[in-house]
Amino acid sequence: MSQVIHRRSIDFLLHEVLGYGDLAGTPRFSAFDRAAVTEILDTAQAIAENEFLPLAAEMDAQEPRFIEGRAHAHPGAKRALDACAQAGLFAAGFDPDLGGLGMPVTVTTLINGTLAAANIALANYQFLTVANANMLAAFGTDEQKALFLPPMLEGRWFGTMCLSEPQAGSSLSDIRTRAEPVEGRLHRITGSKMWISGGEHELAENIIHMVLAKRPDGPPGVKGISLFIVPKYRVGQDGTPGARNNIALAGLNHKMGQRGTTNCLLNFGEDGDCLGYLVGEPHQGLAYMFHMMNEARIIVGANSTMTGMAGYLYSLDYARTRQQGRRPQNKDATSPQVPIIQHADVRRMLLAQKAAVEGALALTCYCTLLVDRMAATPDAAERGDMHLLLELLTPMAKSWPSEHCLEANKHAIQILGGYGYTRDYPVERHYRDNRLNAIHEGAYGIHGLDLLGRKVRQQDGRALDLLVLEIGRTLDAAETQGGFGTEVADLHAALTAMGRATRAALAAPDLDRGLANATAYLDACGHTVIAWLWLRQAVTASRALAAGLGRGEAAFYSGKIAACRYFFRYELPRALHQFALVERLDDTCLSITPAEFLGN
Amino acid sequence: MSQVIHRRSIDFLLHEVLGYGDLAGTPRFSAFDRAAVTEILDTAQAIAENEFLPLAAEMDAQEPRFIEGRAHAHPGAKRALDACAQAGLFAAGFDPDLGGLGMPVTVTTLINGTLAAANIALANYQFLTVANANMLAAFGTDEQKALFLPPMLEGRWFGTMCLSEPQAGSSLSDIRTRAEPVEGRLHRITGSKMWISGGEHELAENIIHMVLAKRPDGPPGVKGISLFIVPKYRVGQDGTPGARNNIALAGLNHKMGQRGTTNCLLNFGEDGDCLGYLVGEPHQGLAYMFHMMNEARIIVGANSTMTGMAGYLYSLDYARTRQQGRRPQNKDATSPQVPIIQHADVRRMLLAQKAAVEGALALTCYCTLLVDRMAATPDAAERGDMHLLLELLTPMAKSWPSEHCLEANKHAIQILGGYGYTRDYPVERHYRDNRLNAIHEGAYGIHGLDLLGRKVRQQDGRALDLLVLEIGRTLDAAETQGGFGTEVADLHAALTAMGRATRAALAAPDLDRGLANATAYLDACGHTVIAWLWLRQAVTASRALAAGLGRGEAAFYSGKIAACRYFFRYELPRALHQFALVERLDDTCLSITPAEFLGN
Repeated sequence: MSQVIHRRSIDFLLHEVLGYGDLAGTPRFSAFDRAAVTEILDTAQAIAENEFLPLAAEMDAQEPRFIEGRAHAHPGAKRALDACAQAGLFAAGFDPDLGGLGMPVTVTTLINGTLAAANIALANYQFLTVANANMLAAFGTDEQKALFLPPMLEGRWFGTMCLSEPQAGSSLSDIRTRAEPVEGRLHRITGSKMWISGGEHELAENIIHMVLAKRPDGPPGVKGISLFIVPKYRVGQDGTPGARNNIALAGLNHKMGQRGTTNCLLNFGEDGDCLGYLVGEPHQGLAYMFHMMNEARIIVGANSTMTGMAGYLYSLDYARTRQQGRRPQNKDATSPQVPIIQHADVRRMLLAQKAAVEGALALTCYCTLLVDRMAATPDAAERGDMHLLLELLTPMAKSWPSEHCLEANKHAIQILGGYGYTRDYPVERHYRDNRLNAIHEGAYGIHGLDLLGRKVRQQDGRALDLLVLEIGRTLDAAETQGGFGTEVADLHAALTAMGRATRAALAAPDLDRGLANATAYLDACGHTVIAWLWLRQAVTASRALAAGLGRGEAAFYSGKIAACRYFFRYELPRALHQFALVERLDDTCLSITPAEFLGN
Repeated sequence: MSQVIHRRSIDFLLHEVLGYGDLAGTPRFSAFDRAAVTEILDTAQAIAENEFLPLAAEMDAQEPRFIEGRAHAHPGAKRALDACAQAGLFAAGFDPDLGGLGMPVTVTTLINGTLAAANIALANYQFLTVANANMLAAFGTDEQKALFLPPMLEGRWFGTMCLSEPQAGSSLSDIRTRAEPVEGRLHRITGSKMWISGGEHELAENIIHMVLAKRPDGPPGVKGISLFIVPKYRVGQDGTPGARNNIALAGLNHKMGQRGTTNCLLNFGEDGDCLGYLVGEPHQGLAYMFHMMNEARIIVGANSTMTGMAGYLYSLDYARTRQQGRRPQNKDATSPQVPIIQHADVRRMLLAQKAAVEGALALTCYCTLLVDRMAATPDAAERGDMHLLLELLTPMAKSWPSEHCLEANKHAIQILGGYGYTRDYPVERHYRDNRLNAIHEGAYGIHGLDLLGRKVRQQDGRALDLLVLEIGRTLDAAETQGGFGTEVADLHAALTAMGRATRAALAAPDLDRGLANATAYLDACGHTVIAWLWLRQAVTASRALAAGLGRGEAAFYSGKIAACRYFFRYELPRALHQFALVERLDDTCLSITPAEFLGN
């Protein structure tokens, strides 16, 4: 059994539940039929298992070191990333005219997720480079693209995102990094950037930083932020790296997890010239960054999900083999012990993991298919609707796994008991690694504000209407299929609660009050969406079972139905209660004063 | 502000809510009035802050090393533990005729909790030694007590608990360690013991292992387990350590947290004689161990709670000073940023921590007061009832904090954002440290089985009746006080649900089915009990406010009421849903087959 990925579940989602075939039927993605995708994922899985996984524990134990102003990553990292580059995994998603392979985002996200399940610290380097290059491909000039994209797509140059500063994390409005125009697109950059993953290392020939900075002529706040390409080594007209830009590694952050990824405080232009190139128009930097961020957020969610999957697979394998205790009904101490998967509570922890991980994976794939379908459709109106729906789902796709697949990792540790708490087994590392995903690319609470403060308000709430319409199709299908009466009723109840909560929040006397429970809203909407996608999976599984299937497959399908029922029975009820908090504009949290926390 | 403990909240619990004064009024504990307790806790806090806290990060980073068969703990550990011993903190809880100070368990638990909040890895050595000595004091012969207790109470010899083996963790029934009688109480011990905290180190002059082993004449299962004193260095009649027993350190476990405590695989008598002394009667070992374990479990819960408190205090302090962003209503980017405690979601995460930590602390103190009141009362019937109630509450006191104060630590990380994820701040260490508490001293699921499979069944459910009676007193007080109508109704509803769930589980067709949702039952009972103790705190606070109070104190009391309301509104509803799962004997988890998890 793979410790990285359960391919059958992915095949099920793509080809049986979510209609990947329709996408492969479009001219844009006709090269990526089921056989092609299988082959690509085989390659990614082989690299993940053979190159990434064997390094995971060691990269965690031997954190990057800061020596004489340089960051030294694990020496094995380069080989693994080279294997990744040679297999075309950096270039996979880019247009062929840019040197890419033109794969759907659905496939490239699964590639990255597969690598992340094996070794997320290593996968980050590839992910950040691709995200960076994506932004360049979308907004760079032809000259910029010609200069920077080829080496990045070949995996020779890596990329970073430089948004946060020591004093500005969630509030990008308050960044202080400056960009002084020199001539044309050339600017002189000064300032400090914090939490820069892959900000410094010797794994690539050059590092291309995408830096948010403010020009002197910009307005205050986010509307005065511009985007710049700032290479570690300046690049000549011929594309060869030349002199070093003045970018000083001021320190490495020592993290709880994802320790193999260097994470840096960088000082730009502190002690000499640091030159950068404006991307696109001045003061549009945040909009450009968000173009990339939205996809990056789905990928963060996907990687969180896949970290959950790795823990699920490991703990399931352990539970099948570890002998311990007897069922409660059996009081005979001389009878043989049973594999712990026989214990109801171990099954609960496995079902909780399965429901979280395979539910979240369905959301990831649903979102990436929206991205791909948008790219493939010639119909602008349809594309507009897909865009709205994607915007609505993105905060959930990013945040829900970061909470509930982290919880899955917690269960995996518990199943292994004392062993799970040691570094001899991977599950405690998964837990540490996954804890980051609720923090970076927008902290959890920020996504709640984004969802309830912005996304559900766009176009008079059209996005939510579209979602309800989509869910309605599944409800209809479930009623037609039969056997899901309780689930249909429960999902209807959740939708009703969601509608009431949304209307109440939007009608609140002021924004502070309306958004006071935005995080609960985010979590409850996530639960509702995951419940929907579980029902959709269960209906498909039920149909497959009704059609009659061979050995092994029947258990696969009935397992999907069991996980669906688990999710509805054990997990979905919390959404109702959270929606109720939002609906009654509960101000318990808003109204407590700072002094009341301790009383002095 | 202390980063370790909020003394005002402890004073409130002991002296205003839970009636510590009644205990101090008994002959047994008359020496420990409020002034004396304050002084003792001052001492513990000073040692925690001055000796324990400064070592915490370093002991975490510099894990014990295994060199030539010996474990080398952090060199600073000995000094801190010596300070602890010199202040009498090892001897604090023992009877004066054994050389102790006779303090109530309520106070010694707070002492240990204070040390644990500062540095749990270090506090473990003291805790295990005391727990070990407690067992000896209860069941050892006069000779054993004379030989072993004095150096342990002086903190010169340390103690361990040797229960688990590599193949037997939750299932002690299946231990294989053997004890061959030599003569009298002397036995020859052979076997391997796993997860032995403090199992080997050079911090003490001797290490006294309390070892569970099976004699050849015993029946199978737990009824054939005996308890032995097995010293690292054999002890002559005069009490001086002599030759080394054959106990080999086979390996150190490398844990996610609590890294400063050595954790060992020990081989007894593998390569020479390992001599141990029977404690009490043969085959009664597990009963003796549980005498100690019950108190140890409350202490594990207390330490989990205090680890939660340390994170709460740290993140609260951070939230009051860290400037970031603006309230949603304010769209002016040129206005100054606000301390993040102004954001509703940060307040939610602080309230969640406060509710979990101060709620759990109330449960800890309630339980330890039961222990002390049992020791102080001359009334056997009253003592019997207290014992029943304590038995019922112990699984909750151990388990509830391990889940919900871990969640509190997760929130503390989130409040610090990226900083919280780094090892430059203590909150990620708290999170790693606290993760162990759901695993050791009985894994989470085991306590669910203990509660629903045993505790609620004793004496026709009398323990639960006693609990409901106690809760009824608080409900009456809340109605008299006024202002808690919603909370009274909600707690009534939870009690009704608890009763129905309990009856249904006990009437189940078989034990496997009746216990299938024992973990949900444990969690829901814990929530109900914590809600009760919050209401009790809130009623007291409301009375204090009505009595009119000076500045500062008013915020303290209204903060308690706010936390109570938070718990009822945001947290308690989950209990209803979990009780419903138990009541309907939901078999989703029980009935899924191993093959269905993946389908092959």
